[in-house]
Amino acid sequence: MLAEPEHAIGVFDSGVGGLTVLRELQRQLPYEPLVYLGDTARVPYGTKSPQTVLRYAQEAARFLTAQRVKLLVVACNTASAVALSTLAETYRLPVVGVIEPGACRALDVSRNRRIGVIGTEGTIRSGAYERALKASDPTVEVYAVSCPLFVPLAEEGWMNHPSAEMIAADYLAPLLNQGVDTLVLGCTHYPLLKQTLQRVAGPDVQLIDSAEETAKVVAGELYSRSLQRSAAESLPPRYFVTDIPDRFERVGGSFLGAPLCGVTTVSLD
Amino acid sequence: MLAEPEHAIGVFDSGVGGLTVLRELQRQLPYEPLVYLGDTARVPYGTKSPQTVLRYAQEAARFLTAQRVKLLVVACNTASAVALSTLAETYRLPVVGVIEPGACRALDVSRNRRIGVIGTEGTIRSGAYERALKASDPTVEVYAVSCPLFVPLAEEGWMNHPSAEMIAADYLAPLLNQGVDTLVLGCTHYPLLKQTLQRVAGPDVQLIDSAEETAKVVAGELYSRSLQRSAAESLPPRYFVTDIPDRFERVGGSFLGAPLCGVTTVSLD
Repeated sequence: MLAEPEHAIGVFDSGVGGLTVLRELQRQLPYEPLVYLGDTARVPYGTKSPQTVLRYAQEAARFLTAQRVKLLVVACNTASAVALSTLAETYRLPVVGVIEPGACRALDVSRNRRIGVIGTEGTIRSGAYERALKASDPTVEVYAVSCPLFVPLAEEGWMNHPSAEMIAADYLAPLLNQGVDTLVLGCTHYPLLKQTLQRVAGPDVQLIDSAEETAKVVAGELYSRSLQRSAAESLPPRYFVTDIPDRFERVGGSFLGAPLCGVTTVSLD
Repeated sequence: MLAEPEHAIGVFDSGVGGLTVLRELQRQLPYEPLVYLGDTARVPYGTKSPQTVLRYAQEAARFLTAQRVKLLVVACNTASAVALSTLAETYRLPVVGVIEPGACRALDVSRNRRIGVIGTEGTIRSGAYERALKASDPTVEVYAVSCPLFVPLAEEGWMNHPSAEMIAADYLAPLLNQGVDTLVLGCTHYPLLKQTLQRVAGPDVQLIDSAEETAKVVAGELYSRSLQRSAAESLPPRYFVTDIPDRFERVGGSFLGAPLCGVTTVSLD
């Protein structure tokens, strides 16, 4: 099936996190139709093995391409780390992950070439950011730590709870001790914690929001392939989840920054 | 297949949490062979729908019964809440969950008949503790809250991190304001947080550790059915997981209170 400008952008994540990417797509590309799939029956991907995550990503991509999409966004760091090249080979569509855009931006802004990366256990264990950063600049020093409590903090809406700052201080300490001047938020949940993280990291550390950078890359891909939609009217995104739509609607609203409704449950496996 | 005294006790959970139950079984029944299954590929169950959790529990029970077990322990509150009666009907084996034992003990110790329950979102949403408590004593008042941050805190080994007490204080506040004198730890992860929870709840609140109570019920079932093993020598438990055995070994050790090795990966779906 050939990609057409009128087709949607397909976005998937293991849960609500990718909604921060959807939000940026809406902001930067307000007239593009969007289809979002949250694999909430199998969330989180971050603690699962590469083989398992690859299989889940393939099932998600198969579902979204069946919805007639012109571009696929893997809005999940864990899945981007392990599945991007396989998906790009399988489908004749541009496939954009969240790792390269964040890594590129970090290399652009870092002056001391000491870059910190935070993410889930799966993303950090995969070493994907380190590889992406060093592929462009082998001299860069990369310091990476996993922060498993950030996802539940964000989902609880406890971004500004006093415990959040305490937890962030502990997680970031080893990175700050290494003198990083740039910190990549390597998980789609983390933009919700941006203020807390900036407070803990201090004003001299530049935070990189990969949702923002990913949306820029998507805009560039559509432009270079002449796949932008011509009509100048916004359409509501379509949402699919694999489990409990009411939780997705409730928690997802704060990720999207707007009420979220009209969620359909589907089965992938 | 008929249950035999020489057969093992089969224990399953979505992840490492049920190891607190395994630990109690080892302590109370040191000569019983134990088989543990952690469905780590699909953890957590707590945020998934009843239908999904029921299907997972059936697959886990099918795997364990194929290992020739004489009794099945559903060492997961979410699965106990939704799957216990179905499993008990399907298999001609005693099936013990973690909800009834904790609820019974709470009714035994509470003097003011105001009982607090904490657990995952799935367990609390199911209302299973409330039903179990009220079935025995309709006059009891039950106050339940979900505490999504406790599982990652326990898995991070941050039981005594300063943030743990702060988070616990917030979660327990509505229960303590209601004057509960008994608090059921309705998630197999929570025994690791017992000290912190007791400190926050104060000395007048009795904590109920369902792992401990579940092991007592298992001992009673084996005795009443003459299914105790006769040999007086300990065997190492057998461990199966559905994903990433190294993480299970690393995190599981602190749940078991002992090093954990010899984990085999299996597929259920």
